[in-house]
Amino acid sequence: MRGDFEAWSREKLTEVESALMRWVPEHAPAGLGEAMRYGVLDGGKRQRPLLALAAAEAVGASVEPPRAEAALRTACAVELIHAYSLIHDDMPCMDDDVLRRGKPTVHVRYGQALAMLAGDAMQALAFEVLTPEAPGVPLALQARLCGMLARAAGQHGMAGGQAIDLASIGTPLDENALRDMHRRKTGALLQASVMMGAACGEAGPAATQALSDYGAALGLAFQVVDDVLDATQLSATLGKTAGKDADHNKPTYVTVLGLGAARAQAQALHAQAHEALARSGLADTVWLAALADRVIERDN
Amino acid sequence: MRGDFEAWSREKLTEVESALMRWVPEHAPAGLGEAMRYGVLDGGKRQRPLLALAAAEAVGASVEPPRAEAALRTACAVELIHAYSLIHDDMPCMDDDVLRRGKPTVHVRYGQALAMLAGDAMQALAFEVLTPEAPGVPLALQARLCGMLARAAGQHGMAGGQAIDLASIGTPLDENALRDMHRRKTGALLQASVMMGAACGEAGPAATQALSDYGAALGLAFQVVDDVLDATQLSATLGKTAGKDADHNKPTYVTVLGLGAARAQAQALHAQAHEALARSGLADTVWLAALADRVIERDN
Repeated sequence: MRGDFEAWSREKLTEVESALMRWVPEHAPAGLGEAMRYGVLDGGKRQRPLLALAAAEAVGASVEPPRAEAALRTACAVELIHAYSLIHDDMPCMDDDVLRRGKPTVHVRYGQALAMLAGDAMQALAFEVLTPEAPGVPLALQARLCGMLARAAGQHGMAGGQAIDLASIGTPLDENALRDMHRRKTGALLQASVMMGAACGEAGPAATQALSDYGAALGLAFQVVDDVLDATQLSATLGKTAGKDADHNKPTYVTVLGLGAARAQAQALHAQAHEALARSGLADTVWLAALADRVIERDN
Repeated sequence: MRGDFEAWSREKLTEVESALMRWVPEHAPAGLGEAMRYGVLDGGKRQRPLLALAAAEAVGASVEPPRAEAALRTACAVELIHAYSLIHDDMPCMDDDVLRRGKPTVHVRYGQALAMLAGDAMQALAFEVLTPEAPGVPLALQARLCGMLARAAGQHGMAGGQAIDLASIGTPLDENALRDMHRRKTGALLQASVMMGAACGEAGPAATQALSDYGAALGLAFQVVDDVLDATQLSATLGKTAGKDADHNKPTYVTVLGLGAARAQAQALHAQAHEALARSGLADTVWLAALADRVIERDN
């Protein structure tokens, strides 16, 4: 099974990488395309694209060409939103980080102005990718995907979570407030990756609810594990600066709960994710299950 | 006629303002909503919303409720994209401007980090506004509007133009290069405002082409006039810092063509815009015509 997952994941990553190469333009003007490609290509674990594609397979969307095309576009769109958020998040006025995926961050390489524009253009590109002008993806599905992505990325989702994060520096957050922040900051887009993938196929209300619960549990587990890794790993393993949240005096699951309780929380969320898949009634949740395992077991 | 236009424009601006008040949320977390509202409410000439609504009227989209709703959402979405671009453009790593619409810029008021996030969230919000979950706007129209907006805002449109602008500081651009930059930087979104408004109704290929030509001419005229005003007006009249392009050693229509030729260019584009309306075959282009006049006659 593990071997199968690695093969599936490699195949899907190749598809996503090649689609991103095609859709993130080399020739956007004045170095913008180069900065965008630098920010999104050749790096990253692509958790969100894999979640989208695994959810699409779970609901049978990988068979019919227009639905498979929609799933691939969804996979790239969620990654573009994620990559843009990293570019902006790394800038001096935010986390001021110089290392990302083992490389200098976009603003270090291209300057702050072009980094900001590259992020802005990547957010727009995510919606371009979801709305192809050529026939293929049904227009009603395009609209649903755009709406889901916008809500996950916007003020009540990722951007809202980042604002809470910003306001929380040096402030004691309790566990509820911390959970709310992470549900928005990272959880919303991870969950949307699952739900958008599922929207590419057909799922009844019960399966949709189960996938939503899976996405929520996995999204939060991802952040708890991130906090544990940030507190326990070296920068070289992470490919980014370790310990920066503690250095910036930001509340994390480790500072709020302690290391042991944070690890236990991650395990509990992992179990919830599997339980949700079990009651989804969907036959083909093996890749979603493997992705939940990988979130817990990763070391970077 | 002029009196009619002022009344129409006042009525539409009230509708747009009240819709923006409703859709730009006061309660987005951690001050984000406040910064977003500061950046978009209570100021601005709302050229783009008025173009969208005038184009929608020209194609009869103001009559049927779902189409009128789509036109109002379009008007707000294009303004959100415009307002986000101003917030980012004013930041220290870009134009480093402290005054906008007669008020301190968003980053001066709320700090750079929240300003960047407010801009990011406003771009997402534009797509949220275009994809209402409640029934009303047909899904196929939602998808078309999202696609048009994303392309106007993204790497080949506004963001691409800003990248060229950034790269052009201190570089001599010829008139063609300058025109290309402005067609993207400001022209693409102005033209998209017209075309998205028109997409809310029904227009045949000839009318669509004519409206596209109108939008292109008006978009470029807008920038030429902007450059003329930047070179000739005081900051107090403009409500923003005058002469900043020359100070930043950026090429403008005035520095490339000279003041007299720039003014003549604006007049020629104005004539082109009217000519395009005349051949559109549309009965109700009176507001579009008045908006073209206002672009030329404005003093701020």
